[in-house]
Amino acid sequence: MKTAHGVVPTPFFMPIATKASVKTLDGNDIKNLGAKIILSNTYHLLLRPGEEIIRAAGGLHKFMNWNGAILTDSGGFQIFSLAKQRKITEDGAIFRSHIDGRKFILTPEKALRFQKVLGSDIIMALDVCTPYPCDEDEAERAVETTTDWARRTKKTAAKIITDRQMVFGIVQGSVYKDLRLRSAKDLVDLDFDGYAIGGLAVGEPRKTMFEILNYLVPELPAKVPHYLMGVGQPEEIVEAVRRGVDMFDCVLPTRNARHGLLYVWNKKTVGFHPGHSDFYETLHITNEKFKKDFSPLDKNCSCPTCKNYTRAYLRHLFSVNEPLSARLATIHNVHFYLELMEKIRKAISQGKF
Amino acid sequence: MKTAHGVVPTPFFMPIATKASVKTLDGNDIKNLGAKIILSNTYHLLLRPGEEIIRAAGGLHKFMNWNGAILTDSGGFQIFSLAKQRKITEDGAIFRSHIDGRKFILTPEKALRFQKVLGSDIIMALDVCTPYPCDEDEAERAVETTTDWARRTKKTAAKIITDRQMVFGIVQGSVYKDLRLRSAKDLVDLDFDGYAIGGLAVGEPRKTMFEILNYLVPELPAKVPHYLMGVGQPEEIVEAVRRGVDMFDCVLPTRNARHGLLYVWNKKTVGFHPGHSDFYETLHITNEKFKKDFSPLDKNCSCPTCKNYTRAYLRHLFSVNEPLSARLATIHNVHFYLELMEKIRKAISQGKF
Repeated sequence: MKTAHGVVPTPFFMPIATKASVKTLDGNDIKNLGAKIILSNTYHLLLRPGEEIIRAAGGLHKFMNWNGAILTDSGGFQIFSLAKQRKITEDGAIFRSHIDGRKFILTPEKALRFQKVLGSDIIMALDVCTPYPCDEDEAERAVETTTDWARRTKKTAAKIITDRQMVFGIVQGSVYKDLRLRSAKDLVDLDFDGYAIGGLAVGEPRKTMFEILNYLVPELPAKVPHYLMGVGQPEEIVEAVRRGVDMFDCVLPTRNARHGLLYVWNKKTVGFHPGHSDFYETLHITNEKFKKDFSPLDKNCSCPTCKNYTRAYLRHLFSVNEPLSARLATIHNVHFYLELMEKIRKAISQGKF
Repeated sequence: MKTAHGVVPTPFFMPIATKASVKTLDGNDIKNLGAKIILSNTYHLLLRPGEEIIRAAGGLHKFMNWNGAILTDSGGFQIFSLAKQRKITEDGAIFRSHIDGRKFILTPEKALRFQKVLGSDIIMALDVCTPYPCDEDEAERAVETTTDWARRTKKTAAKIITDRQMVFGIVQGSVYKDLRLRSAKDLVDLDFDGYAIGGLAVGEPRKTMFEILNYLVPELPAKVPHYLMGVGQPEEIVEAVRRGVDMFDCVLPTRNARHGLLYVWNKKTVGFHPGHSDFYETLHITNEKFKKDFSPLDKNCSCPTCKNYTRAYLRHLFSVNEPLSARLATIHNVHFYLELMEKIRKAISQGKF
């Protein structure tokens, strides 16, 4: 995928820099880990530091000193999951900040304009994200509003967005096949630069998610990227790639790292087998059994944490609440996810996936 | 100063790695900042991870992957400032852990043996550290016990410590000249590899501290290092160097960093003038006035934070509680302290101090 900040080989995973920082890492750390693209959040950046400061900084890349690609979500998911007193009107979303209760109005046009100011390489159209479970009427209204907002997004984008920025639409429709297909058709007719699948990984059974991907992804144009928002565990990513998904983001590697849950390769298994998650294991590094384990987290891992530190040292750092614990664990988990994507790309290119 | 882990030019400052990590930094970060020696704490390491794990790791250098020099304090100060239900007997200190109430007994011999296990380049003899204010009787008892423990330390060191590790004595005596001079003489007679001045920077007026240094440092052998424990602000370090002190440690650069207080050079002033602190300034980076300040913390600073990030970005990170804030600030403040020592060494070598 070509962006204004470099080519990103697909399929790929985007580490999450919610508030303009991948937690505990700086721009050089992310670059050294080999990430080509990160995700940041419109909702959070709109609240703090706000549009005025980002504009004065010359955009998000300059503000956070990151020269790779950036995708920003539209705020739709956070309005649904974080904001207080939210109200969806025809015009847009009215909500109060989860931090200080300040009132915000986000319209499709405003979300687009703010992401233009951010300088995002990939702008997401504002959508209405439904929770799970969600009745069919509510899901239908969400699809209709999402389509309407997508149309307004494209209309404004035609005036203010240059070729340097891509704009993606987000398919909604909850777990209802007719609605999902209708949402996909509506958006495809509007001709976006890429298509995201939203409203999944919000509590529905994993099987349901894969069934939706089975019928939905084939309806999206093959020549543009397909993005499954907020997914997921390594085995979910593998299964979604198998179904034609190209792009992923998830808090799991970074959030789990901060809680001492670390991903390591299972050396006994080779390659990716449909439905199997046995290619990796997780370590709860705070476990007593690691107290005198002076081996790296993963002896075949080439990340700076595994090259320099032992399980016993990591366990110690977690047990005494040293802030370095979260950093060393984050470096390892982000490296694991990036290596997973590299393995998947290699397997695909070798015809072995 | 020659150590088993490299030569350290004097005077120098030791960043503090209380629990086997300079908070937010790893061994490579410290090395890249140019530190040649760090300080770690016997008391904290004895509690967690404990002797058994450090021994199994092959010492503290290997455990934390730091190949520079390490000085470990003896635990005397933490027993006085942190531990619960402490009791000083002739034999040693009995106290309860401030974490879980576990009972510990630390004798001069045990403190020495544990620091041998740690593999410290500089071992501190266990001392009795007095608070401020402290009446003369209590200060005298502390000096007598400290001398007795120093004698036992030397006696055991003669049997178990090799030339690879140095052992320092700690002068006590509170603010009483006779006691300070007596403590110094007692320790000098025991022929330590270096001498520390303890029990200062515990609340006494700054003027009192300098008066003590004025009469005390000349009583210490000129050919071995003089170490002022727990000091201090940049101007205090300058004034102590002027009085013949070679070694410093302090939590200020790292602790202040985590609270957004940053040290920057005052470019209007040149060099160090007796009693003047105008060679530097402090920034409270959380201040509103920095929100659109896209200059580095210090435009003449060569640290990674100043080379890559702006005041506005740092302020944002602090205001949204991103963990990267503490790290970028720590990198800058530790760099400032190390650069201060470099400037002092240069001024001394040029005869301009």
